[in-house]
Amino acid sequence: MQLCVIPGDGIGHEVIPVAVSALRRLLPGLQTHAADAGWECFQRSGSSVPEATLESLRASGAGLFGAVSSPARKVAGYRSAILTLRQQLGLNCNLRPVRSWPVISPRSGIDMLILRENSEGLYVGREHMESEGIAIAERQISRVACEQFAARIVEVAEQRSAHRVTLAHKANVLLLTCGLFRDTCRQVLAAHGWEAQVDERLVDVAALQLVESPESFDVLATTNLFGDILSDLACYWSGGLGMAPSLNWGQSIALAEPVHGSAPDIVGTGRANPIAALLSAALLLRYHWQQPELAARLDAAVEGFLVEAGAVDFADRTTEIIADGVISRL
Amino acid sequence: MQLCVIPGDGIGHEVIPVAVSALRRLLPGLQTHAADAGWECFQRSGSSVPEATLESLRASGAGLFGAVSSPARKVAGYRSAILTLRQQLGLNCNLRPVRSWPVISPRSGIDMLILRENSEGLYVGREHMESEGIAIAERQISRVACEQFAARIVEVAEQRSAHRVTLAHKANVLLLTCGLFRDTCRQVLAAHGWEAQVDERLVDVAALQLVESPESFDVLATTNLFGDILSDLACYWSGGLGMAPSLNWGQSIALAEPVHGSAPDIVGTGRANPIAALLSAALLLRYHWQQPELAARLDAAVEGFLVEAGAVDFADRTTEIIADGVISRL
Ligand SMILES: CC(C)[C@H](C(=O)O)[C@@H](O)C(=O)O
Ligand SMILES: CC(C)[C@H](C(=O)O)[C@@H](O)C(=O)O
Repeated sequence: MQLCVIPGDGIGHEVIPVAVSALRRLLPGLQTHAADAGWECFQRSGSSVPEATLESLRASGAGLFGAVSSPARKVAGYRSAILTLRQQLGLNCNLRPVRSWPVISPRSGIDMLILRENSEGLYVGREHMESEGIAIAERQISRVACEQFAARIVEVAEQRSAHRVTLAHKANVLLLTCGLFRDTCRQVLAAHGWEAQVDERLVDVAALQLVESPESFDVLATTNLFGDILSDLACYWSGGLGMAPSLNWGQSIALAEPVHGSAPDIVGTGRANPIAALLSAALLLRYHWQQPELAARLDAAVEGFLVEAGAVDFADRTTEIIADGVISRL
Repeated sequence: MQLCVIPGDGIGHEVIPVAVSALRRLLPGLQTHAADAGWECFQRSGSSVPEATLESLRASGAGLFGAVSSPARKVAGYRSAILTLRQQLGLNCNLRPVRSWPVISPRSGIDMLILRENSEGLYVGREHMESEGIAIAERQISRVACEQFAARIVEVAEQRSAHRVTLAHKANVLLLTCGLFRDTCRQVLAAHGWEAQVDERLVDVAALQLVESPESFDVLATTNLFGDILSDLACYWSGGLGMAPSLNWGQSIALAEPVHGSAPDIVGTGRANPIAALLSAALLLRYHWQQPELAARLDAAVEGFLVEAGAVDFADRTTEIIADGVISRL
């Protein structure tokens, strides 16, 4: 098994080694390859994702990505490393599970999987000035991308024996783009026998329901920017961004990535929470390497640690205490 | 004082008369003019917003709108009545207050005002098929609209003595469109002495914070579709859509509108909650007619009713009980 390791910027360098240690414990033969990407990388090398990083990821087939900082304003030649990686490697589906955890989560009984289309929508980078003072961004939705995405919905829904797939869109306003997304997903799901389990929500209604009745969601699938917003708010139920893993999932390459950012304010304090990185590694095990038992072991180690740690005050040794607590349970 | 009354579809016919009664009590000389709009209107007349309705609104300068149903699929010639009204009448700012109410709200101490740009973004209706299977929607952000919108931010921030204005955007991905929104709002706010109170959030982060720490927001201003999503989720803190008022606010015309829909499932049961309509009428008083004392009386009547009603089970006489309870307090 090969793994390309890209800590990126900031606390990426603190949480990713923890996840790598956990994976080594579970997969003794794992070979890792370090690679560079991000804002610091851009400042050093002029590229936020060097060609060597793309090659290493393609060769490994799997990657673990930390976090990247972004410049506050547009910088010539710079493009977000994670967006470049998603696009260049065709990582067209972003998996973001949200579940209740002991101790940390505000409520028990929540277990959903948000699937975010990861290649198009408002992320296609097609922006221009139409005239002085009028900016246009194009939101692209294509049948091909929706079909690939919907195939992933089917795949995860089958693995979870999902009782419901909810499509979130805004087709009452965006008749063509959201209509194409909705109709294509419905067709693919119906072709795989999931017709009866599919329903839909307007994205605004979905946002409210994610707060009001999060337990009513099972698999929630939506377009790129809606998925960005909905998955961030939903991770409240897991215990916040420090508990939110994701998997950028392509046809032959997958890149695991904690949802949190590079958190420059806590770099070096020892307080970075590595759980999102650990859970991201578990997604790689479950969905990409198809090792559900190993993934379950890692999830269970996190759960066991949380139950035991209970009211412990992590403070300035958070990263270390969590790392030891979880890895010793594997 | 003139008011154009447009119940629209469904429970619009049940809640709007309650709000009109409250306004009559507060403004004895109020003259009302009934007008038609919505999906039923379209089916009857071929237009979701007849020209006579636009004329009546222009003549009155103020309107109270109920709710409209939408067809599930695209219907030739049909366009959402509320979108048409917002656009045709230049109602370029949508005010959506979110606050804690006694009894009903999940938490006390929340008091924010969400301002949604109401005229452009992804709502400009510029969608087309670029080729077979590829749909494009254009998101338009213009300096002129942002300037008008930002002037409204200044106006409400001054009325509230706001301690903070937060701009929500996605300028890390949408550099030009969100960048133009952010920069223009900042310029206008700075020109009015609000520079030090302005901060910004990425829209995904804002969504999470609206759940995690809603009390940290005061005035939250954002573009059209982000405002649609964020205001819906935030109204959880008021007690849900049944408690969510809004004001579509133009230069010389304002149209108050409860955020909820036409709720066809409860039409005729007597269970429609008129509070969102009542609070929308209060917004008309406060911001358009500049009658803050009358607005405060209406808000206080709602609050007084909630406190007294406490654990009362409204069930099938909800509309009537709330109407009597609130209006008798005016
Ligand atoms: C950093 C940013 C470009 C990214 C996104 O918008 O996708 C992030 O918010 C995420 O959710 O992974
Ligand atoms: C009905 C719909 C077109 C509308 C919108 O998207 O603006 C509604 O959700 C709202 O918030 O007023």
